[in-house]
Amino acid sequence: MEATRCLRLSSFILLLGFFVAVSWYPLIDHLISQPELLGCTTPWCTSKNHTHIPKLNKPPDTPLHPLDPLTIQEINKVRAILSNYEPFSLSFPSIHSLSLDEPVKTQITLSSMEFNKSIMARGVEFSDLSCVTPSPGWYGPHEEGRRIIKVLCFSSQGTPNFYMRPIEGLTVTVDLDSKEVVKITDRGRAISVPTATNTDYRYTAQDRPPEMDPINPISMEQAKGPSFRVEDGHIVKWANWEFHLKADQRAGMIISRAVVRDSETGEPRSVMYKGFASELLVPYMDPDEGRYFRTYMDAGEFGLGATAMSLVPLNDCPRNSYYMDGLFVAADGRPFVQPSMICVFERYAGDIGWRHSELPINGFQIRESRPKVTLVARMAASVGNYDYIFDWEFQTDGLIRVKSNLVVKTFKFTSSALRCNEIRYLRSIGRLSGMLMVKGSPYENAYQVPNREDMSGPMVSENAIGVVHDHFMTFHLDMDIDGYNNSFAKVNLVKEETLPGQSPRKSYLKAKRHVAKTESDAQIKLKLYDPSEFHIVNPSRLSRLGNPTGYKIVPGGNAASLLDLHDPPQIRGAFTNNQIWVTPYNRSAQWAGGLLVYQSKGEDTLAVWSAMNRRIENKDIVMWYTLGFHHIPCQEDFPVMPTVTASFDLKPVNFFESNPILRAKPNFENDLPICRPASSY
Amino acid sequence: MEATRCLRLSSFILLLGFFVAVSWYPLIDHLISQPELLGCTTPWCTSKNHTHIPKLNKPPDTPLHPLDPLTIQEINKVRAILSNYEPFSLSFPSIHSLSLDEPVKTQITLSSMEFNKSIMARGVEFSDLSCVTPSPGWYGPHEEGRRIIKVLCFSSQGTPNFYMRPIEGLTVTVDLDSKEVVKITDRGRAISVPTATNTDYRYTAQDRPPEMDPINPISMEQAKGPSFRVEDGHIVKWANWEFHLKADQRAGMIISRAVVRDSETGEPRSVMYKGFASELLVPYMDPDEGRYFRTYMDAGEFGLGATAMSLVPLNDCPRNSYYMDGLFVAADGRPFVQPSMICVFERYAGDIGWRHSELPINGFQIRESRPKVTLVARMAASVGNYDYIFDWEFQTDGLIRVKSNLVVKTFKFTSSALRCNEIRYLRSIGRLSGMLMVKGSPYENAYQVPNREDMSGPMVSENAIGVVHDHFMTFHLDMDIDGYNNSFAKVNLVKEETLPGQSPRKSYLKAKRHVAKTESDAQIKLKLYDPSEFHIVNPSRLSRLGNPTGYKIVPGGNAASLLDLHDPPQIRGAFTNNQIWVTPYNRSAQWAGGLLVYQSKGEDTLAVWSAMNRRIENKDIVMWYTLGFHHIPCQEDFPVMPTVTASFDLKPVNFFESNPILRAKPNFENDLPICRPASSY
Repeated sequence: MEATRCLRLSSFILLLGFFVAVSWYPLIDHLISQPELLGCTTPWCTSKNHTHIPKLNKPPDTPLHPLDPLTIQEINKVRAILSNYEPFSLSFPSIHSLSLDEPVKTQITLSSMEFNKSIMARGVEFSDLSCVTPSPGWYGPHEEGRRIIKVLCFSSQGTPNFYMRPIEGLTVTVDLDSKEVVKITDRGRAISVPTATNTDYRYTAQDRPPEMDPINPISMEQAKGPSFRVEDGHIVKWANWEFHLKADQRAGMIISRAVVRDSETGEPRSVMYKGFASELLVPYMDPDEGRYFRTYMDAGEFGLGATAMSLVPLNDCPRNSYYMDGLFVAADGRPFVQPSMICVFERYAGDIGWRHSELPINGFQIRESRPKVTLVARMAASVGNYDYIFDWEFQTDGLIRVKSNLVVKTFKFTSSALRCNEIRYLRSIGRLSGMLMVKGSPYENAYQVPNREDMSGPMVSENAIGVVHDHFMTFHLDMDIDGYNNSFAKVNLVKEETLPGQSPRKSYLKAKRHVAKTESDAQIKLKLYDPSEFHIVNPSRLSRLGNPTGYKIVPGGNAASLLDLHDPPQIRGAFTNNQIWVTPYNRSAQWAGGLLVYQSKGEDTLAVWSAMNRRIENKDIVMWYTLGFHHIPCQEDFPVMPTVTASFDLKPVNFFESNPILRAKPNFENDLPICRPASSY
Repeated sequence: MEATRCLRLSSFILLLGFFVAVSWYPLIDHLISQPELLGCTTPWCTSKNHTHIPKLNKPPDTPLHPLDPLTIQEINKVRAILSNYEPFSLSFPSIHSLSLDEPVKTQITLSSMEFNKSIMARGVEFSDLSCVTPSPGWYGPHEEGRRIIKVLCFSSQGTPNFYMRPIEGLTVTVDLDSKEVVKITDRGRAISVPTATNTDYRYTAQDRPPEMDPINPISMEQAKGPSFRVEDGHIVKWANWEFHLKADQRAGMIISRAVVRDSETGEPRSVMYKGFASELLVPYMDPDEGRYFRTYMDAGEFGLGATAMSLVPLNDCPRNSYYMDGLFVAADGRPFVQPSMICVFERYAGDIGWRHSELPINGFQIRESRPKVTLVARMAASVGNYDYIFDWEFQTDGLIRVKSNLVVKTFKFTSSALRCNEIRYLRSIGRLSGMLMVKGSPYENAYQVPNREDMSGPMVSENAIGVVHDHFMTFHLDMDIDGYNNSFAKVNLVKEETLPGQSPRKSYLKAKRHVAKTESDAQIKLKLYDPSEFHIVNPSRLSRLGNPTGYKIVPGGNAASLLDLHDPPQIRGAFTNNQIWVTPYNRSAQWAGGLLVYQSKGEDTLAVWSAMNRRIENKDIVMWYTLGFHHIPCQEDFPVMPTVTASFDLKPVNFFESNPILRAKPNFENDLPICRPASSY
């Protein structure tokens, strides 16, 4: 415990520079007024809505592990330090996020009148005004030296889905330091606020059931309870896995020190030191004045943890889930609880771990099959109109699946001038003012549009087109396969031609192994017609057969950024220039878009680090993987889209001596619970 | 009913030519002796092992739907016709498969001493001999005009996993008509049969539990029963879906006439006329004498239904599954039941259909989330050492996910000469004879191998290397979106550059739509850096917004064939030259590798049909998609590998007017069952 405190104390000092630099007051400000905010007058403050949520454990007042998140006491300590710091004696800085630097690894045991007039001219009541403050990105020197936000507003009259009721064409640029309106752009004066009809997605607002036969209740049941346990609030133990799990204000959820038990010896073996969503880049594909800047970086600008609301029991997560709170910091440095923002649950989906049947011809009547049960750690960030669901799924065969589900409400409202408002928010700044006049009548269907080719996306509802956009999620994957020093090997499948007369075959594939020497060897663009496997191996630990132990990253469906490399958003988002990168471990290189991304110029991205071309062979290395989605919206996405999923796997390759789940037990009838409907109770 | 009979009768005539042409006796011969085989003396014969399998319905003696599979009576009728056919009066032909041609669509309502010596010299008892008969492929003219099989043998002494005990280097080529051994190749005389140790994968053979904490029982429970029903034995109705499902001896499982109910009007709308796995190509990457020919076509050569053994309840399929038999035909024309080879079940895996939370800043306390429940139709073919699990998963949001899971035992046993035996079988022909002598001592680990670069794959166990190979599954997807006449549209995302001064952005993406005119326009190779969406649309049916109704195919992870286009296996497997093809509907073009694939030369493949370059715009069209896997084996694959999964989606795009599951009901506590452990009963 003393060692833990010592490590954590030293990490505090490192944090101070970060607080001073990152002080965008609008970001978390609003949270101060929330019920979850804790004044720290109670010894321990949990959120108030946990009635039906089973808590296996209460977070402790003192950290139990070096990797545990900050406690209330520690956050208050930081605040006290900052308050006593001379430059802050008059005005306390606003804080974007506060989290613990990881310990040194080798020690480790872890408002304007103009605006007001615009609003009034639209007939929108100020009480119905909902405004959001998307980040401005960086587009050349004219906004440098100022801390800028963009403001976009909506009417929430008649609907909670205010995103569907934009005050069209109005963008306000605000200087956060001088609190001045720098610029008001209003190109949608002729466009009336779209109707609220059919935009409410809440269950209580639906007037009829869907056109389908009802579905009887179905649930994953564990009459003997879940098999995992969470020790000391953060150490998750299940089957052959153990890992540290915590909420993080920026990354959302961090998995650390993932260790799997050897299937033969029972030895705990290191797989991953740390894994998390490091950055998200979301470029929209419209160069117009009100839209060009919409190229968000959700983790660094908004925070995946800061925007992760409580999960909904039985719907976001199944029965028998364990819920974990996030303990974050508001803009004034006071701690607050983000309740039940992570859930952990076991999953059986009717899938098969392995199977084999024999045709009975050889005298064997064999039908062997094993059910697949996995463990999932989940969170869901609601970054404005976006919901990102992140799953880390652990399998008993050693595989880790990282899955991202996307639910987006993304619309551009259109008229003859094709103006739009598809927006995110973080803070209500409705007290800003301006004036807007309605012009023109909007199109109701695609035939009315004079030049459909010029639309930045398809029509998805009356007066609404969905703007094409991308999502890129870059994951930090600090793999430590059986120890720190690892290598990155590309196992390339190449076509070999046979010699004349050698074989009736003309060609075959051969797997050729290349161990990356430096960072440039590990900058990978995936190619369907030049395929490879990508292994992180420990060259010092060989299997009994002489193969280096390893894990491979197995990409699933993916999408790449196609923007011009010299386009400002792509300069800032240069970490998406490749799908895979490998860098030497560097404790300060955690965030792919740089530590400070708001209005950043791309001077501190993964691409810049990798360009140093350092040696990465047999070293402590970090792999980065970018999962991409192209999104061409369609009608089904209105007013809220069904989830879209993509994933990648981290999979053992010659890590185990043989199939690690060979001896797994099948299901027998007597193992399964006896259930009856609750309504017959 | 009369119309149904008339349609089916006319289809019989079409079948006759097929029976005569396809008469490879070894394929199903062995099944004659199986208990599931029906002598047709009972009016209805079900399989005997249905004790714990709920059957919602008994298959009828007479067909209820034009698409229903053949009945026992019908099979006997065919047999009688064939028996009375003059050329067969002396010798009844052996039958590969027998199934009903689909009705015209617009009518629809809907031995050798040498061998023996080899075996004896290896010390293998003949009673332990297990032989398999892989197909020979086509490798030039020298085997033309003969009906050839390859024979490979194993010792099953001490293990049911005889694949791990090859009689190494011995390949026997047999002429099926003359019943002559054409050739015996024996290049493994010095290699002793590998030990049986650690090769048995059966649960009963395991001496200890796996090195992991036990997992408490977990199951998907439906206390009120499943929500789907199966009418007339084959029509599956669930939520907003209805489709016809049947077992097929060649394709395994066929989904027909998939219809989804419109989310607003309740109107039943056509999505897919027919979908199934049309062919599987499995080329191994070793040009050696004993291996070059291993380029199997599993559907056409072996039959995915013929090799689909009964599913294992609670392990292959969850509780509350509905099981469907296959009714197939043995080589002598008699019908037999493939019991419980398809299961249908509802699935809740803790996934989210859609969700949205609001940060409370705008006064809305919103946390809406909907659980995702789906319907799965599953089968598992055991084509020798391979197990292929096929899932067709139907979602209430209109999405159809086609998922393929792979479990393979694939090994090449090696010695100084790197000989191998990684094999499939269909019939024991152990009575063939030959002679084999053991030569050389096998390597036990990679360091002993003089030239590791020459290995055709990595070592996966002592004396065993896993040969690199591919799997390609080509699906026939006869989409009928709101009717027969559809078009194929490629929505290409292209980078557009802005003009100087136009925008702070330099570039953005634009979606450009191209409607394919002819087949060549629809030959698609997927490209990460030249991405497109691929839509099947009905140009005659527009949404209220003016968008054509459609479905898109959404590829997931995939692999492409890299073999030389002039390589014999690639000529036969030319249907894998592209990932997507679109052809005009043709009732006789159902099998991507051709109707008769055994020793085929590639003269009747999808590639040949597509080369006709017919018009496909606003016509009845069929889409073909190939799902590929590259497999570089690893230790974890020994002795049986954990499942590997890949999938693609068929997803509505402007098919519904808005999110079809917007009004779906969330889960409430009172909906879910009350369960207790069975052991406390």
